[in-house]
Amino acid sequence: MPTYTAPTRDARFIVNEVLDLASYGNLPGFEMASPDVTDAVLSEGGKFCAEVLAPLNLSGDQEGCTRHEDGSVTTPKGFKQAFDQFREAGWSTLSQPEEFGGQGMPHVLGFAFEEFVSSANQAFGMYPGLTNGAVSALLAKGSQEQKEKYLPKMISNEWTGTMNLTEPHCGTDLGMIRTKAEPQADGSYAITGTKIFISAGEHDMADNIIHLVLAKTPGAPDSTKGISLFVVPKFLVNEDGSLGERNGVVCGSIEHKMGIHGNATCVLNYDGAKGWLVGEENKGLAAMFIMMNAARLGVGIQGLSQAEVAYQNAVTYALDRRQGRALTGPAEPEAQADPIFVHADVRRMLMDAKAFTEGFRMLCLWGALQVDLTHSAQTEEEREQADQLIGLLTPVIKGYGTDKGYEIATNMQQVYGGHGYIEEWGMSQFVRDARIAQIYEGTNGVQAMDLCGRKLAQKGGAAIQAFFKAMGEDIAEAKSDETLAPLAEQLEKALGQQQAATMWFMQNAMQNPNHLGAGAHHYMHIMGIVSIGWMWLRMAKVAAQKLEDGGDDKAFYEAKLATARYYMDRYLPDAGALRRKLEAGSDSLMALGEEAFATAA
Amino acid sequence: MPTYTAPTRDARFIVNEVLDLASYGNLPGFEMASPDVTDAVLSEGGKFCAEVLAPLNLSGDQEGCTRHEDGSVTTPKGFKQAFDQFREAGWSTLSQPEEFGGQGMPHVLGFAFEEFVSSANQAFGMYPGLTNGAVSALLAKGSQEQKEKYLPKMISNEWTGTMNLTEPHCGTDLGMIRTKAEPQADGSYAITGTKIFISAGEHDMADNIIHLVLAKTPGAPDSTKGISLFVVPKFLVNEDGSLGERNGVVCGSIEHKMGIHGNATCVLNYDGAKGWLVGEENKGLAAMFIMMNAARLGVGIQGLSQAEVAYQNAVTYALDRRQGRALTGPAEPEAQADPIFVHADVRRMLMDAKAFTEGFRMLCLWGALQVDLTHSAQTEEEREQADQLIGLLTPVIKGYGTDKGYEIATNMQQVYGGHGYIEEWGMSQFVRDARIAQIYEGTNGVQAMDLCGRKLAQKGGAAIQAFFKAMGEDIAEAKSDETLAPLAEQLEKALGQQQAATMWFMQNAMQNPNHLGAGAHHYMHIMGIVSIGWMWLRMAKVAAQKLEDGGDDKAFYEAKLATARYYMDRYLPDAGALRRKLEAGSDSLMALGEEAFATAA
Repeated sequence: MPTYTAPTRDARFIVNEVLDLASYGNLPGFEMASPDVTDAVLSEGGKFCAEVLAPLNLSGDQEGCTRHEDGSVTTPKGFKQAFDQFREAGWSTLSQPEEFGGQGMPHVLGFAFEEFVSSANQAFGMYPGLTNGAVSALLAKGSQEQKEKYLPKMISNEWTGTMNLTEPHCGTDLGMIRTKAEPQADGSYAITGTKIFISAGEHDMADNIIHLVLAKTPGAPDSTKGISLFVVPKFLVNEDGSLGERNGVVCGSIEHKMGIHGNATCVLNYDGAKGWLVGEENKGLAAMFIMMNAARLGVGIQGLSQAEVAYQNAVTYALDRRQGRALTGPAEPEAQADPIFVHADVRRMLMDAKAFTEGFRMLCLWGALQVDLTHSAQTEEEREQADQLIGLLTPVIKGYGTDKGYEIATNMQQVYGGHGYIEEWGMSQFVRDARIAQIYEGTNGVQAMDLCGRKLAQKGGAAIQAFFKAMGEDIAEAKSDETLAPLAEQLEKALGQQQAATMWFMQNAMQNPNHLGAGAHHYMHIMGIVSIGWMWLRMAKVAAQKLEDGGDDKAFYEAKLATARYYMDRYLPDAGALRRKLEAGSDSLMALGEEAFATAA
Repeated sequence: MPTYTAPTRDARFIVNEVLDLASYGNLPGFEMASPDVTDAVLSEGGKFCAEVLAPLNLSGDQEGCTRHEDGSVTTPKGFKQAFDQFREAGWSTLSQPEEFGGQGMPHVLGFAFEEFVSSANQAFGMYPGLTNGAVSALLAKGSQEQKEKYLPKMISNEWTGTMNLTEPHCGTDLGMIRTKAEPQADGSYAITGTKIFISAGEHDMADNIIHLVLAKTPGAPDSTKGISLFVVPKFLVNEDGSLGERNGVVCGSIEHKMGIHGNATCVLNYDGAKGWLVGEENKGLAAMFIMMNAARLGVGIQGLSQAEVAYQNAVTYALDRRQGRALTGPAEPEAQADPIFVHADVRRMLMDAKAFTEGFRMLCLWGALQVDLTHSAQTEEEREQADQLIGLLTPVIKGYGTDKGYEIATNMQQVYGGHGYIEEWGMSQFVRDARIAQIYEGTNGVQAMDLCGRKLAQKGGAAIQAFFKAMGEDIAEAKSDETLAPLAEQLEKALGQQQAATMWFMQNAMQNPNHLGAGAHHYMHIMGIVSIGWMWLRMAKVAAQKLEDGGDDKAFYEAKLATARYYMDRYLPDAGALRRKLEAGSDSLMALGEEAFATAA
């Protein structure tokens, strides 16, 4: 059976040493996040995930969820009890606002913890994870009454939340939704329609489920400008906060999926269910994007989480399994064979994983810090810059991060050879679970278009210019340091590839927007590669400084420098190839019509 | 439910127009393979696979195999009947020698048909596929008596065959096997031990199963120089060919796997089972490699097959599913949305698939032709050259082909968005089934080392020089043709990357063999990219000639040229990035010791 240890030492390095959270101590929320507090949170949180959630991962996959005839759903054995413990320990409240019962800690910590949860048990983590998404929409767009009614119990996880967007005929193109919201005399709406792919849509783990539902009011425009957001509780909530009658929303079936079997993916049938408008009519898309952006970062972290847990198990296996001899001569001559860890091709896969997970963890937590600064930074300029950076990086964290998460999980399965293909070893589950993250909350193709079609051009390219400037400054500084200069020079070349690709888009996409569409996915990958390279440069700087200072944990910092070198050697070269593909444009890509894709027998 | 149409038009293009099988008509076997015969075989074979095997694919995945208490195994509903039809139609005999009941057709046709079988139903295809592997070992190494006893019924598929290599503690490193073969007074051996991961190891589809088993005789050297190959029938075969008593080999369990559920992957327990030596004692490895090489080409074709069937379904879905609008303006303004086929990012995924599957089909069938020429070419020099080329390309076809097969199947699943993750749509199965091909018959890491550690250096690099020379000649010729010159120039650059990478190995691998191990996987991918580029150049040449000649099927040949252009634009750039990674060597890759890979809580 697979095992999991939360990488808290690495998270502490990022949070306390690289991001240096303590230096933000004058900002709201951060004052509580002193190094000893963050250490305690990460360490206790990591322990909880490893001890309570991880042991339920494989069994949850094997058992899955069961829907009963009355529409109720049972989660896998142990999930309900684990969720009780999760709730009682207050993990859901970590970075939620104090006003509604949260602890008000920085999102950096919340995201760090989310990685541990998802590594330990991705299917489980989606129950509180989706709740977070719904909370963020209500926080931003709900009325004060709605906030008071729903948020405390959602934040405590007594109730969970969902996001209801997709319908059978539309997912990406939400302008086409058909779910109707008929205004009622009492100010509520009667919601009728079918929603599909609703994660955590029905289950036995909480007393109530608060659905946030996109629907159309009568006469609304037939586009994304005509969709509104509604809050639709499974059980109506009385004035005194107690639960009232069962609302008209029922789970019609649950899907048979490739993975995340422990999470109930529901078809939800709304039949005149009572709902209340959240925010303004026809402004549902904006509210939805608030949920979505929070959720997208969370999904990016799922990519990290599956790569991490798969990596940990692959390391254990590589040290345990003995086959063949090192190319440089027997490493352990007294044994019948060497551990496969000695083989350069196995080490390549492990180093690829290590360089990705550590670098991408840094990118995710740096991104989470930008989320915090968007709200908490002292000046409008700083808040604006943080908002631009995280807006730009969100599709990269989601899209590139989950593409790589799946690839790394697959490679870690490969380390196991034939055993990796056998379900009992658990590696297949990591791959199958990682796969969904490339698809939901907007496929990675949608992320690429969000990045290239929207974010790059916004405000005259202000965000990408800020990104280039910030990275350029770090590179310039690093070039004057003997240890960092070689890394900085490699990174500078890759950044040059991204800048050239950006320029190519500027010069060609207006003339033919398909040039943008044809290169968007490549651009997202270039930006992922370069961004993580930037993060490695920042980590290498701190590691080098620590080594210069002397002190403990020398091996840890030396490994950081070695891994930074590996990243630059082995990840950055792809930026150039991707740029060349991007610059090939859309001519050969769009050359063929539909008939050329038919298979002729 | 997914559908499948055998791409017979494309296979006919390769077989009759590009490889021009008829031009080999003077060689044994080829005289029968006139264009009308190959057309008929491909067309009938394709129909059989689409109509009989494909409808059992999804149900076979869902039902899986069942082992009963007595060790017997039931295959999924319909498999037995389909195998009866397969046998009766004589499909298994296609390119087997006439001496033992085969039709003696070229392997090119056999491999083309194998793709169709595997696309339609990979799990099913493994029953006859493994039989082919066992047949090839007996053909090469069996005594005349053994051949007469087993081959006719194996070739007819009345009996099936297996390959028994892996044991719980060893797979790649076969020197460690523990299965014992004790010589008996009657000239037979008593085989005792446990073999795992035995595909098609037990089932209800044939009267007998002929196991080929690696085992050690008493006192044999404790390395690969001490393994011998034995034939161990499930039922002993009497002198008159009738079946005798049940042999001491029993299926102890079947594995729960990520995919290929329709194939029984067995633990086989040998308890003094009666076996007979095949070939010489302690020369089992060479015999095993004969099975292995045939099997590796077959596995490469599995990579092709899953990419192909996933591609076909993704095309259908992309034309059917409507979301959003083309970036260049509504393609179908009267509809509520355009088919997602109009989106450049979707087209990118489809074109990636089309360019890979058509190019890789050509590489596989060209490889199959080399297999034929190894036996049938007129001069020793031609036979030698064919043998070198297919020896060199076998790990590339297996390793690169299956890595890409999995990647393409994954991307085709991505075209489906959320629906791709739902098992009923069948896309998950294509991905899960494709995954095994990267692992079995030697992991792709083993393929990479076979290519770089053995094949590159053999006979002073004769094979790779022959490969460079043959491709160089085609490039030189194409550069003088207006249509082909741009393709040839792009390919020449990529070939230059491979040549530089080869040179780097020559200059660095002796000094530190880890440089070879660290770059082997990259080299295998460079060679895959370049080889398929070569195949595209050859196909483009024929297509251009056909267009110049006028005649039918203009759209088909134009699509070939357009896809060739796409391939050069979008696949070749990776060769340069891979070369840079390879040239980074093993320093940063091997820098860290075991302790740096431990997760610190």
